[in-house]
Amino acid sequence: MLTGGVGGARFLLGVKAYLGWDPVGPRPDGSADRVQAVVNTADDIRLHGLQVCPDLDSCLYTLSGAADVQRGWGRVDETWTVAGELAAYGAEAPWFSLGDRDIATHLVRTRMLSAGYPLSQVTAAIAERWQPGVELLPMTDDRVETHVVVADPAWRPPAGTGTGTDGSPAGRGTDGSPAGTGGGAAGAAGAPPVALHFQEWWVRYQAALPAQQILPVGADAARPGPGVLDALREADLVLLAPSNPVVSVGTILAVPGIRQALVDSPAPVVAVAPLIGGAPVRGHADACLAAIGVASTAEAVGRYYGARSAGGLLDGYLIAEGDDADVPGVRVAQAPLLMTGPAATAAMVARCVELAGVRR
Amino acid sequence: MLTGGVGGARFLLGVKAYLGWDPVGPRPDGSADRVQAVVNTADDIRLHGLQVCPDLDSCLYTLSGAADVQRGWGRVDETWTVAGELAAYGAEAPWFSLGDRDIATHLVRTRMLSAGYPLSQVTAAIAERWQPGVELLPMTDDRVETHVVVADPAWRPPAGTGTGTDGSPAGRGTDGSPAGTGGGAAGAAGAPPVALHFQEWWVRYQAALPAQQILPVGADAARPGPGVLDALREADLVLLAPSNPVVSVGTILAVPGIRQALVDSPAPVVAVAPLIGGAPVRGHADACLAAIGVASTAEAVGRYYGARSAGGLLDGYLIAEGDDADVPGVRVAQAPLLMTGPAATAAMVARCVELAGVRR
Repeated sequence: MLTGGVGGARFLLGVKAYLGWDPVGPRPDGSADRVQAVVNTADDIRLHGLQVCPDLDSCLYTLSGAADVQRGWGRVDETWTVAGELAAYGAEAPWFSLGDRDIATHLVRTRMLSAGYPLSQVTAAIAERWQPGVELLPMTDDRVETHVVVADPAWRPPAGTGTGTDGSPAGRGTDGSPAGTGGGAAGAAGAPPVALHFQEWWVRYQAALPAQQILPVGADAARPGPGVLDALREADLVLLAPSNPVVSVGTILAVPGIRQALVDSPAPVVAVAPLIGGAPVRGHADACLAAIGVASTAEAVGRYYGARSAGGLLDGYLIAEGDDADVPGVRVAQAPLLMTGPAATAAMVARCVELAGVRR
Repeated sequence: MLTGGVGGARFLLGVKAYLGWDPVGPRPDGSADRVQAVVNTADDIRLHGLQVCPDLDSCLYTLSGAADVQRGWGRVDETWTVAGELAAYGAEAPWFSLGDRDIATHLVRTRMLSAGYPLSQVTAAIAERWQPGVELLPMTDDRVETHVVVADPAWRPPAGTGTGTDGSPAGRGTDGSPAGTGGGAAGAAGAPPVALHFQEWWVRYQAALPAQQILPVGADAARPGPGVLDALREADLVLLAPSNPVVSVGTILAVPGIRQALVDSPAPVVAVAPLIGGAPVRGHADACLAAIGVASTAEAVGRYYGARSAGGLLDGYLIAEGDDADVPGVRVAQAPLLMTGPAATAAMVARCVELAGVRR
């Protein structure tokens, strides 16, 4: 599976359930099945000196029963003492909450990274504790960070311009300042572009600032993480989780070599639509799709992934009951896509297997 | 004042009370007085990637009312979620407890240090929050770490030696192994020396392993922290806190330039004995003194510091009621030395001022 965080982790619970495994337990001894997940790491962020890997941690915690299912992220029974203190210090990034239990994970990870271990080995070491049952493969050991280009939310018109009392633009920049660039009006519309870390855009601004560009910075020079290409090469079935097609699955595919390995894989590739009735179940996939000019519909996402037979990725595509998707060259099926629990999600997985035409 | 952690911090509470300041408040606006403390940093330790400065933090927390007075270290209302998680990960150094509130301080500090700020500036930035009233000057911005040489507690006799069933040494090493070195018997007595970080010796082993040497590693190449020499030069009175004379005051004096600045200072120098009735009130000063061949008595410590008139440090020396100390060339006075609260400690400070013969 290619996956992001919460949604993909829940889908992996369904995969484990489909295989008859305990969804929150380790892989049973002697199981003939093996599940590997290539996990997006471009949402990773260094906060308070700690390397935070939200998608990897969502997988680790969710797949071992340590996630807070109600909140949707982080650890269950979490406490927030450190965060309160960091706020009292006025430490940066108060908009990103780190729970105390979670911080321990970041401490262990950051210390190992500082000691020179690659993220893949660090992840394997952390997984020793959690026993997620699924092999979690960071998409890369290299640094890739998604940045989102928006109109600078902190920008104010330079002195000498300003807005009229009715709030409408009252003047133009005449001094070569950004307000005048391109002959645009002063005010928010004249704000110069600024690149925010994905998390700042996503968490702090709730993806409400229109994204002009979404850039996986560093992806062009990144190498696939250990085991990633082999996983795609040796798979019997590749699933694209119902994760964000732009900043989760899309970023994984932006690491040179991964898209080609997927295309070359002998395994059928089946995606699960990340939208139900044109809206993401959670998160802001619609805002990300808008940034790349893709409509927020299951069909548009299916066409964005494209048919394998036409240079795209998909052999099959599972969409929600009630949705329609005509994706030329791709077998499309419908199923209830709300992942209300491992059993319901296992049924989705069964439909994917059926679509793929593979046999257990 | 030259000071270590808890004991020195409590003594500083008394200094503030003596000056009529709120012991746990900031320096009053317009006060004609100024208190500077040169703080030992050789107990500092990097744990879980965090730079921990126990003495600086004891001062910060104690002087702002944020310390846990009952426990004797760390923050009041502390929680321990992160520590529990780190233990669950099997992270190293489980013998050193870091509270959640405390960890936030270390995160802020470590991040600033990583960004290139020297410890003195980092300490000043952290003190902005705490407003300890006292200027806390790290003895150095350079890395100095006290290491304690002990017989390796993990050493076991090599195969082929062993001990008799009565536990007595039964053989000698004959293969050139450490057991044979120096003709010593096998068993614990034959263990080779090993250097432990001070905190491992102090906290993990409770200073119960006899110290063969106590080494302020890095001190010879360290430079006094910003403001330290000026503080000694401009002081009206220099106090040596009742801190550990070896690993607190002694380490500060091991930074080249500090001892000479103290000797050259126009201010009188008065020490407070760190022992009452031959025993430390808390901590293991006796074990440290034993390592340098100094008896655990107020008199022996006074003589170890020595009279300024004879190349030593002291003009005055305050010892506990009931103790005796004949220190040639030093004015000695007695007072109750139990720092039961700021008022009692202020009385100690008043006695020091009296001994020094300075006027306010």
